[in-house]
Amino acid sequence: MILLEERNFPIKELRLLASERSAGKKKCWKNQWITTEQVSKEKFEGVDLVFASAGGSVSKSWLKEIKSTGALLIDNSSAFRMDSDVPLVVPEVNPSDAYGHQNVIANPNCTTILLSLVLAPLSKIYPLKRVIVSTYQSVSGAGAKAMEELKLNSKNLLEGQKIKNTVLPYQLAFNLFLHNSPLDDNGYCEEEIKMLNETRKILHLPNLNFSATCVRVPVLRAHSESINIEFEGKYSLSKINEVLGKASGIKLIQDFSANRFPMPIDVTGKDEVAIGRIRKDISNSNAIELWLCGDQIRKGAALNAIQIAELLINKQ
Amino acid sequence: MILLEERNFPIKELRLLASERSAGKKKCWKNQWITTEQVSKEKFEGVDLVFASAGGSVSKSWLKEIKSTGALLIDNSSAFRMDSDVPLVVPEVNPSDAYGHQNVIANPNCTTILLSLVLAPLSKIYPLKRVIVSTYQSVSGAGAKAMEELKLNSKNLLEGQKIKNTVLPYQLAFNLFLHNSPLDDNGYCEEEIKMLNETRKILHLPNLNFSATCVRVPVLRAHSESINIEFEGKYSLSKINEVLGKASGIKLIQDFSANRFPMPIDVTGKDEVAIGRIRKDISNSNAIELWLCGDQIRKGAALNAIQIAELLINKQ
Repeated sequence: MILLEERNFPIKELRLLASERSAGKKKCWKNQWITTEQVSKEKFEGVDLVFASAGGSVSKSWLKEIKSTGALLIDNSSAFRMDSDVPLVVPEVNPSDAYGHQNVIANPNCTTILLSLVLAPLSKIYPLKRVIVSTYQSVSGAGAKAMEELKLNSKNLLEGQKIKNTVLPYQLAFNLFLHNSPLDDNGYCEEEIKMLNETRKILHLPNLNFSATCVRVPVLRAHSESINIEFEGKYSLSKINEVLGKASGIKLIQDFSANRFPMPIDVTGKDEVAIGRIRKDISNSNAIELWLCGDQIRKGAALNAIQIAELLINKQ
Repeated sequence: MILLEERNFPIKELRLLASERSAGKKKCWKNQWITTEQVSKEKFEGVDLVFASAGGSVSKSWLKEIKSTGALLIDNSSAFRMDSDVPLVVPEVNPSDAYGHQNVIANPNCTTILLSLVLAPLSKIYPLKRVIVSTYQSVSGAGAKAMEELKLNSKNLLEGQKIKNTVLPYQLAFNLFLHNSPLDDNGYCEEEIKMLNETRKILHLPNLNFSATCVRVPVLRAHSESINIEFEGKYSLSKINEVLGKASGIKLIQDFSANRFPMPIDVTGKDEVAIGRIRKDISNSNAIELWLCGDQIRKGAALNAIQIAELLINKQ
């Protein structure tokens, strides 16, 4: 809602829908209080656009009702992302995919959105051969309660108190762990498989060689990624710097003389994804290494969803 | 000293040497108080073994005096690591290198020691083609004052106070940053170049293709590494699990059914390096991905130095 207001998104009427448990809560919108209503079929009537961020099963259970009203659903869950008739869109990367929607557009996974902003402009100048990523994912990706748990447990540990984990699976304060989403038979976790499949779909590169290791770190709000990109052939590093320096949605934080590159706190609350330390991979003459930080809640989620809607509004 | 006592290291007389500033401090050794003395040439007389962990310039300035007494220097700094006449030793990996010493043996960089324990046994069964590593390095690697700064700044941030960085270059509390060691012209930092050169030297693989991205994270004590290893040809994952499961200095923490793999707090204060999530790299049929955590102070520094000395004592 803050972003909708910040961006002056054209809204005639705003309805806030939630489960029975959350109904009744009031939120401020342009100096007016709006009461959250319990979701029902009737609440979607007359609506043009639905932003959903309520988890896959909730989105699935209301899909038919939303579609029957003719509204467009922009869904933040993973429920429809890999459906062949649902566009998966990062506006800077594959805007034209959005135009062919059939009343549902999926918002990609946070780490995928951030990464695609780097891979897309590069793939246009040099075909990609293989991408290897290790992530440093903030606790905000696990939700507001997980953020509170990290803060509380950090405080308790500093005071020599015992800690409890009720939201996160393990201690995150002054610790870290591999992303705990369910494991596939191949040993990758769901988050890593999402990155693989969604990156391929967004970039229209169904055979891209891709491997990720996803890690939860005790950072509050922004994700980081250590990225190794191998091209099919030779490349020019200056050309890459030039292309990424101009790429939409990206900001270079790259001061080699001051040894200053992106950090999570640089991008917290910011729209742009920061990249830096772009360098030739000394282990492979066709590859580069680079570093990325992006706000997980903004470009990694809500901002991208709103930008998808803006894309369609501007097209009209 | 705790480790020397724990391991019952054979000591007839223990001298504690330090700069003028630190001289006079007392340390407890086997129920006796030993006073730290200011370092001087005479203090090395009659000594068999010197453990030095005082930085490269200090080690260099005393090298001649130590050698002239016939003592063996086991040095924790980077001063001599790449000297061709100085063995760089991880006892589980290249013990025989230690036997040819000329009164100086270098202790490798912490991240390198941990990594070499994994690469060495694998390289014996499958030749290595390329290794790509992203690190998650704890603040202990930056020293005791940095650890205190992380704790203090975490507390202050949780209480809504302003923070200052006097030891670390940037805020580390709830944040992270690329390792801030000086940058090489190729865009890699010194820590990353150390990993490259030292790994090659320890493994006797001077042409190993190797690339690292080193990152400082708000963890107190143990380092983690996300490791991608490409072999020259095909491999058997079960064979790799078998070899690593038996490898010296390594412990597998790998429960796929419980989604439980190594975390820094698992290895804090422990001698063994923990590895897990060993899986086929889905982006390259000759490669694997795996995850590692190791105590930066124990195996990453002091323990390895003591093990080098034990190696020579046991050889006698």
